[in-house]
Amino acid sequence: MEGSSTSLEPALEQIAADIDQLFDELLNPPHDSRTRLYEAMRHAAIGGGKRLRPLLVVAACALYHVDRERALRAGLAVECIHVYSLIHDDLPCMDDDDLRRGKPTLHRAYDEATAILAGDSLHALAFEVLADEATHEDPFVRAELVAELARAAGPAGMAGGQMMDLIAEKSSLDLAAVTRLQQLKTGALIAFCLDAGAIMGRVPPEGRSRLRGYARDVGLAFQITDDLLDAEGDEAKTGKRVNKDGAAGKETFVSLLGAERARMQAGLLVTQAVEFLQSFGAEADLLRAIAHFAVERDH
Amino acid sequence: MEGSSTSLEPALEQIAADIDQLFDELLNPPHDSRTRLYEAMRHAAIGGGKRLRPLLVVAACALYHVDRERALRAGLAVECIHVYSLIHDDLPCMDDDDLRRGKPTLHRAYDEATAILAGDSLHALAFEVLADEATHEDPFVRAELVAELARAAGPAGMAGGQMMDLIAEKSSLDLAAVTRLQQLKTGALIAFCLDAGAIMGRVPPEGRSRLRGYARDVGLAFQITDDLLDAEGDEAKTGKRVNKDGAAGKETFVSLLGAERARMQAGLLVTQAVEFLQSFGAEADLLRAIAHFAVERDH
Repeated sequence: MEGSSTSLEPALEQIAADIDQLFDELLNPPHDSRTRLYEAMRHAAIGGGKRLRPLLVVAACALYHVDRERALRAGLAVECIHVYSLIHDDLPCMDDDDLRRGKPTLHRAYDEATAILAGDSLHALAFEVLADEATHEDPFVRAELVAELARAAGPAGMAGGQMMDLIAEKSSLDLAAVTRLQQLKTGALIAFCLDAGAIMGRVPPEGRSRLRGYARDVGLAFQITDDLLDAEGDEAKTGKRVNKDGAAGKETFVSLLGAERARMQAGLLVTQAVEFLQSFGAEADLLRAIAHFAVERDH
Repeated sequence: MEGSSTSLEPALEQIAADIDQLFDELLNPPHDSRTRLYEAMRHAAIGGGKRLRPLLVVAACALYHVDRERALRAGLAVECIHVYSLIHDDLPCMDDDDLRRGKPTLHRAYDEATAILAGDSLHALAFEVLADEATHEDPFVRAELVAELARAAGPAGMAGGQMMDLIAEKSSLDLAAVTRLQQLKTGALIAFCLDAGAIMGRVPPEGRSRLRGYARDVGLAFQITDDLLDAEGDEAKTGKRVNKDGAAGKETFVSLLGAERARMQAGLLVTQAVEFLQSFGAEADLLRAIAHFAVERDH
């Protein structure tokens, strides 16, 4: 298990470089007053984050021998959605954060209006990237990718989870409610990453249940670890404010279970997640390594 | 010309009812704390607006005998983008508006965080609707619709135009700059409406130049009329605050040309727009009527 975690470092470095390069190519500022918008998008999108979601897409695509260039484009689309959601979540009327990925949040570095527009622009860009022929030669695959990402990002997924999270500040959730909230807020997008591999590998919906199980368990393990890092973590390593949830009086896996049981639960989920990959051979090693990384990371 | 304007009323009433019904079906609140999000989306999306963009899609689809149910779904997707952009543009950090379509703006009726999330949710919904089989049986058509709408909504289109508009408050634009700004901020989405008809009618890109010409001219005529209504209009009829641009010191077609020349320019653009439809017969009557309505309306 230690070995698989360590072996993820080169993959993390590679995906970070690949995604940065793709963003750099796509976000070429025009020669007019929109330059500010493009620079804001670059501030938020380039040079930060673990790029875990693109790596999950690439790892899921590896199961079905999907071309890496195409997998990267689908991963870029998910990252567009993830980055836009961070920009909007950091706004004063939402979580009111000053620090993200070790840099000032976008509304701090620019202003609120620019931050909202940069988020909206990355949101649109995600679908432009997916619908482009370069992502997949089969338009059926492209349309399915778009439909699934839109569902995962919208009110039935991420945006709905964020609404639940806002309301949770004023109420007291139990473990089932926190789990449901996180399955929408962060789980839906992680589930899409695995789905994207299956869609691009032309696996029919009924053949995707193991990957869905893996996604659900890794997503929750990842969130529990985020809660642990928020409760106990180091701002210098996470690159964002810590103890946010405690200060906001929000229930988390850690507040509900205690740190020790939360850590144990995350470990169990990783074991379960890896079991879903049993029928795969070495082509699933990257997914196995990501599952371990989800709980062993310190940032 | 008067006749064609008058004859638009039944079409406007019909499209308003159709779009309201589709929104009502799609925005069925779930039984959890996301109810607030769905209710906010309904507040913004149902029961207001001229639905000019969906009507343009339906009218463009009529040229190529595209099934009306499908045209309505593509029109609904454009309206999702339009409504989301109004929600975000009305926010305190943008235009800070209290009144929209005769009702309190969404952040006034709910709160800023809910308004941002409702906008984001409608944004995602647009692409979910377009990518669905019910919109068109050919996945190539669905993928092309998504790619074009994403381009029209993003930094190369509407969001880019909104950025230009924010910067314009602090600078002084000439007529060419105001035209360019409006071609992005409102023109790109209107151009998509016509493109959508051509895409669904399987007209190849090289056969879409007349419709693009029509869209460009009607879009500008529509915007000039909006500027005239803002400068001279009646809040009770427009359902939104008037003289916004004058108060903000923004250059508009009216401030640059004067009301009389602006009105004349809008009329010329409508004549030009209708000329692009010369080769079409009665199937283009709705597009002709919309062109006249763009400048003859009082709201």
